[in-house]
Amino acid sequence: MIRVGIVGYGNVGRGAEAAVLQSKDMVLTGVFTRRSPESVRPQGDTPVLPVSRLMERGADVDVLLLCGGSATDLPAQTPELAQRYCVVDTFDTHARIPEHFARVDAAAKAGGTAAIISTGWDPGLFSLMRLLGTAILPDGTGDTFWGPGVSQGHSDAVRRIEGVADARQYTIPVQKTVNAVRRGESGFTARQKHTREVYVVLQEGADPQRVARDIITMPNYFDEYDTTVHFISAEEMAVEHSAMPHGGFVIRSGKLGPAHQYDSLMEFKLELSSNPMFTGAVMAAFGRACYGLHARGKTGCFTVFDVPLGLLSPVPADEIRSKLL
Amino acid sequence: MIRVGIVGYGNVGRGAEAAVLQSKDMVLTGVFTRRSPESVRPQGDTPVLPVSRLMERGADVDVLLLCGGSATDLPAQTPELAQRYCVVDTFDTHARIPEHFARVDAAAKAGGTAAIISTGWDPGLFSLMRLLGTAILPDGTGDTFWGPGVSQGHSDAVRRIEGVADARQYTIPVQKTVNAVRRGESGFTARQKHTREVYVVLQEGADPQRVARDIITMPNYFDEYDTTVHFISAEEMAVEHSAMPHGGFVIRSGKLGPAHQYDSLMEFKLELSSNPMFTGAVMAAFGRACYGLHARGKTGCFTVFDVPLGLLSPVPADEIRSKLL
Repeated sequence: MIRVGIVGYGNVGRGAEAAVLQSKDMVLTGVFTRRSPESVRPQGDTPVLPVSRLMERGADVDVLLLCGGSATDLPAQTPELAQRYCVVDTFDTHARIPEHFARVDAAAKAGGTAAIISTGWDPGLFSLMRLLGTAILPDGTGDTFWGPGVSQGHSDAVRRIEGVADARQYTIPVQKTVNAVRRGESGFTARQKHTREVYVVLQEGADPQRVARDIITMPNYFDEYDTTVHFISAEEMAVEHSAMPHGGFVIRSGKLGPAHQYDSLMEFKLELSSNPMFTGAVMAAFGRACYGLHARGKTGCFTVFDVPLGLLSPVPADEIRSKLL
Repeated sequence: MIRVGIVGYGNVGRGAEAAVLQSKDMVLTGVFTRRSPESVRPQGDTPVLPVSRLMERGADVDVLLLCGGSATDLPAQTPELAQRYCVVDTFDTHARIPEHFARVDAAAKAGGTAAIISTGWDPGLFSLMRLLGTAILPDGTGDTFWGPGVSQGHSDAVRRIEGVADARQYTIPVQKTVNAVRRGESGFTARQKHTREVYVVLQEGADPQRVARDIITMPNYFDEYDTTVHFISAEEMAVEHSAMPHGGFVIRSGKLGPAHQYDSLMEFKLELSSNPMFTGAVMAAFGRACYGLHARGKTGCFTVFDVPLGLLSPVPADEIRSKLL
């Protein structure tokens, strides 16, 4: 049994917990939190411990699933914990991946551990699909679309606007552009690829026109998109918009043959009724692979591109070959 | 530059050739054939040599792409050539994969080479998708559908029937069943999953009713399916049915969350206007990976499950991380 610890008990932490409990080859030995441990109530009787315990005394784990955020948690936590434990994270601040990789690699090599960063579905599974697409169809074009689904970052940005009591933002791919990318067209703008739908509960007395304008013109988040704002009641928000669905697809279209005359289309799609539950499930599978890499003597930092995918499965290699190949 | 040799110059061999010529990090150093070398006309000025030359004298190659058939060519060729060369094949006789793996593994270990067997898209890419699906969504169901596309094996089977001058068989997924699998239903029969459409050119004087009956009742190939037979002219066959399109999709639907209450759907789709060209392109990418494994000191037999996918790309690891992760 692989002994797994979960660090951070938010939505993704609960997803990782559920996935570990579904895995017959894993046992959950601890949930580690920065909150007061009594305030955290995991499923079953998993011990809850302060995260500081991990570096002070060591813990009974083979691999840690780091379920904190990329903005402030993971840049410090992943390299620190990699000094002592095999770790898996979901670091997704794209521009900072090279720096994060280098720091985690140094820590893991010094500690004799293995780390897999930037798992989940994007980065993660979608990255693998982009790689397959470009490696097999080098003479081609492609794109990634997200949604329909809730963007946590955009929802949070709207909640910070004055007069907004609550908000939920849905990212929606534009079907016409999706079809054009399937046909091999490229060069689309942000506005052509996705629309944004925002559901807002106003604070008492707030001016809806001003709030709508503040949303639609928000730089980086909304100004490059066609955005629709809907004002709803707190009750409607609770009933209709409490789930966290997401998904998307990676498309690669390319030309093959001596005269580049043959079209090929590769497409990978996800439809998730819960984004954090699926992210946790991907993390658990990469936790198993991280343990497997370390058991084979590998140390240092890895990404999804470095992991033989057979290591994601609890099934032995000969059985995988006879059942899935 | 990776020096690549192609063994067998049929449709897949031509696909592999086109893919190698599209690859900036590969050079095609030879086409090896059992036919008379003068009868083989590759693109450009690639030397054509008898396949026997490979074991007699050795050749100037880093990896061989073995483009023969699984019935008789590869069971002998892959282990023999693996004694001396890094090799990639598309062995697809499912029941014999364990035996083929063992023989190639012994030969490659003895020869200090690396071999990747059963590449292509199924087995190959579809196998990877089945693995991702079962590893990430263990509490789930899924299925693989093929087509719409031409099945070479079924077309050949019809051509062997008395009175048939030419034939082409299309495999077509049943949309209703595809949708049911997406919803998480399972347990479908062969007949529920695919239909078969056969286009036949009759020999002069042949009885169409007898030929149709012989097709529809053929054990293993057609008796478990709903099959439609169309009789057409040789001209219509040449104009409408000379392409070799294929494709299909791998679906995995599963439940996540503490009460298994969250649905997730993973789906991978291929639409190929030329099956052998795409198969050749996948082989070329795995040829690069085979070279990469060997360059890292690995010897023995591998499958798609053992290959870190980053090795499929000619792009260096740090650039893959910054561009595709």
